[in-house]
Amino acid sequence: MSERIYTAGLVVIGDEILSGRTHDKNIAQVASWLQVQGIRLAEVRVVPDVVERIVEAVNALREQNDYLFTTGGIGPTHDDITVDAVAEALGVGVMVHPEARAMLERYYGGRGLELTEARLRMARVPEGADLIPNRMSGAPGIKIGNLHLMAGVPHITAGMLDALTGTLEGGAPLLTETIGCWTPESEVADILRQVEKAHESCQIGSYPFFREGRVGANFVVRSTDADELKSCVDSLCDGLATAGFDFTPGGI
Amino acid sequence: MSERIYTAGLVVIGDEILSGRTHDKNIAQVASWLQVQGIRLAEVRVVPDVVERIVEAVNALREQNDYLFTTGGIGPTHDDITVDAVAEALGVGVMVHPEARAMLERYYGGRGLELTEARLRMARVPEGADLIPNRMSGAPGIKIGNLHLMAGVPHITAGMLDALTGTLEGGAPLLTETIGCWTPESEVADILRQVEKAHESCQIGSYPFFREGRVGANFVVRSTDADELKSCVDSLCDGLATAGFDFTPGGI
Repeated sequence: MSERIYTAGLVVIGDEILSGRTHDKNIAQVASWLQVQGIRLAEVRVVPDVVERIVEAVNALREQNDYLFTTGGIGPTHDDITVDAVAEALGVGVMVHPEARAMLERYYGGRGLELTEARLRMARVPEGADLIPNRMSGAPGIKIGNLHLMAGVPHITAGMLDALTGTLEGGAPLLTETIGCWTPESEVADILRQVEKAHESCQIGSYPFFREGRVGANFVVRSTDADELKSCVDSLCDGLATAGFDFTPGGI
Repeated sequence: MSERIYTAGLVVIGDEILSGRTHDKNIAQVASWLQVQGIRLAEVRVVPDVVERIVEAVNALREQNDYLFTTGGIGPTHDDITVDAVAEALGVGVMVHPEARAMLERYYGGRGLELTEARLRMARVPEGADLIPNRMSGAPGIKIGNLHLMAGVPHITAGMLDALTGTLEGGAPLLTETIGCWTPESEVADILRQVEKAHESCQIGSYPFFREGRVGANFVVRSTDADELKSCVDSLCDGLATAGFDFTPGGI
């Protein structure tokens, strides 16, 4: 019995990430959200504000995955080119979405502000697209086929993810359990390898750290099957105990 | 007079980033470091601990760029497969580097510990590779051709970047200047577009934020030419002042 695995790609768009000026928060945010939806984040690409580079990344990742997400580049300024790039990638035109226009009119009108041409840019979508509601500001995200175009500002991205929660078909969520050890990972490498080998449906990741002047590692066991996961975690704990290592269930 | 632009790609290797468990810190760290070396980070790909996916990303980005960096997957455990994947990407074998072996012997020997097979994994390199010193722990990074394989743990990555500082040929560093406004970016979008258009060698990025209950944006002007940068910044300030906007040189 092999279960269907759903995957997603993420394209993070923005010179500000590639220059080091802005620390990306969306990769972790989208990754965690996808886990809960039963969708695995298979690859992330961070690309600059250049149409051809966005087109290339979008086309590569949308074909390889069930879903594609983008963050960044859907605002009102000249460097916001995600809609144009995605339309080009899909071979469709760009239109002003009437509902998005109405949302912006309500949002700005309610604040006594005019819907300028720059603001109206935020109502532009690839032809055939639907909107992703955004309760943080007037400007919606965009959904077209298996693509989801979201904002770059993390709290606005969060609102859009919230609106999408439960709307995408996924598989069994990946379950994880963590065991921590105040031990250099090199000392337990053999145990990890043997336990993983004996539990085919589980993966074990080893994540070393250096804290409070000491080294240690967290071992993260992953599986979509709760019984297999438990069996693998039990074997790992047995192996560590037998070899005389102290460990902390739940991780350090 | 067009100046040679040096570019780099970065491959971040690790299931822990794609699962959302670990928040990546290396993208921003490598990006900032490259800026100072006069090298532009052109693209980042985050890929899982799967040999074929690493090979694909490494080959794509090393061919498109002057330099390629990787972070993650060079430790002692079974999920550390970067060396094997890069050797496969380059079509070379894997060998134990004698100097790396000696470094590990000194490091573990000095602590009264044995150089186990797992620890010896950290001396494995693609054939023909040199080492990148790592003063934080015994295990070195790896340099082969235009590729630089670095650790995933951020403070160890930092030590390896430090060891590489000034050793890579770069171009003129990208200079930036930031102007902040407590104004929705949509209100100044036209000014930004016009000023950028009038200064061909400069780019202006607009980065909106929401702080202290108010919206604003920082406008980042970038150029490799100090005079052009100044002229563009002056034009932008003039444009903002003429339109009646308050702004903060240096950014908010």
